[in-house]
Amino acid sequence: MAHEIPDIVIGRLPIYLRELTRLAEDGDKVTTSSYELGKRLGISSAQIRKDLSHFGEFGKQGTGYHIGYLIEQLSEILHLTYEWGIALVGAGYLGHALAHYAGFQHRGFRILCVFDSDPTKIGERMAELTVQDINEMEATIQRLQIQLAILAVPVNVAQAITDRLVQAGVKALLSYVPLHLNVPAGVEVSYSDPVVQLQRMTYYL
Amino acid sequence: MAHEIPDIVIGRLPIYLRELTRLAEDGDKVTTSSYELGKRLGISSAQIRKDLSHFGEFGKQGTGYHIGYLIEQLSEILHLTYEWGIALVGAGYLGHALAHYAGFQHRGFRILCVFDSDPTKIGERMAELTVQDINEMEATIQRLQIQLAILAVPVNVAQAITDRLVQAGVKALLSYVPLHLNVPAGVEVSYSDPVVQLQRMTYYL
Repeated sequence: MAHEIPDIVIGRLPIYLRELTRLAEDGDKVTTSSYELGKRLGISSAQIRKDLSHFGEFGKQGTGYHIGYLIEQLSEILHLTYEWGIALVGAGYLGHALAHYAGFQHRGFRILCVFDSDPTKIGERMAELTVQDINEMEATIQRLQIQLAILAVPVNVAQAITDRLVQAGVKALLSYVPLHLNVPAGVEVSYSDPVVQLQRMTYYL
Repeated sequence: MAHEIPDIVIGRLPIYLRELTRLAEDGDKVTTSSYELGKRLGISSAQIRKDLSHFGEFGKQGTGYHIGYLIEQLSEILHLTYEWGIALVGAGYLGHALAHYAGFQHRGFRILCVFDSDPTKIGERMAELTVQDINEMEATIQRLQIQLAILAVPVNVAQAITDRLVQAGVKALLSYVPLHLNVPAGVEVSYSDPVVQLQRMTYYL
C-alpha cells in the first residue's frame, strides 16, 4: 500500500498528528471534524478527508473523528508507536539547539548520542548527552541500532559523514547542511535550509 | 506572471541557485547543463529545463547555461539583488544558532536585530548583535523597514508575537515553532519543524 500514497500526503500526516495532539492536550473535547482541523491548519476539510481516506475510515458522518483514536492510528501509520533513537552529528551552535530541543521526546524521538571531531568539544556536556569523538560514531550507531541521524556539520565534510552514517546503518537523515547529499536507494533524506526557505518567500515580496 | 508559476517550481529555484553558486565557487568551469545540474541535485534535467522555461530562455542548445548569468537571473527572479534585513525573535539556543549562522550573508540576508522578553537575555551579545527587549520590537522593525522575521520562541507566545510582527510590517515569516500560524493574506509563512520532517521519513522505514 505504502508506495501508492503520494509523498505529499505523507508529509501532511505529521501536521495533522501535531494539531490533534494539541487538541488532546487542550482537553476540552473528545472529537473533532475535518472542518475544525482544517480551519486550525489552513487546509481545506476536503483535503484532510481525502488524505486520511488513503488509510481507512477514521471518522463517522455527523460525529467526526475521535481525537485519541485518530492520534493512535496516525502514530501507527507513521511508525511512532515506539521511540526512535537519533544520532546527532555536529556539536556547534545548531547541535546545541537540537540537543536542548524539548520537542522530540513526546513525539517519538530521542537523541541518544552526539558526535564531533573538534577535540575542544569532545567530552562536553550537552543537555543529557556527552559529546563523543566522531571516530566512535559508527560503532555507537551499530551498538545502539540507530537508524536516524541529524546532520549539523560544515558543508565540506557533509557528504563524507553521510557516507559513513549510511555505511553504519542509518536509514533516514535530517540535514541542516546547505548541500544536496547523495545517498543510496532506500535511504531517506530531508533538508532544512533557512536561506532556501527565505528565498522562496522573497520571490513573492 | 508571478501567480501563474506553481509554488513548487519557485521552491526549487533557491536549490538551483545554491548549486550554481557552489559551481561558480569551484571555479573550474564557466557553463553548466541541465544534465549536470540535475545529476548534482538528484532532479531530472527535463524538470530543470521546464522549471527555468517559466522565466525565459537561459541556455543555448549545445552550450548549456552560463553559470554567472543564470545566478544573476535567478537572483533577480527571487528578489535577491539587495540584502534583506531580518528580525530574529527568540534568543534561546536556536536563536543563538541562527545569530551565528554564517550561511545568510552571501545569500541575500542579514539578521539586523534580535529580541527576547527574558530580562536575563536582554543586553546579551549574540554574534554581532545585542539582544533587545521585545518591547522595542515593533519600533525597531519599522525604523529599519524590516519585512522578514524568524520566529524561535515558545509555542504559547508564537501567535501573539506573529500578530505583532505582521502589525509592524513583516511580510514573510520563517517559523521554527511547531504550530500553524494564522496570518492575513499577503503574508508568507514558512515552517521548520524537525519532528515533522523526521515523522515523514519514519513512515518509509
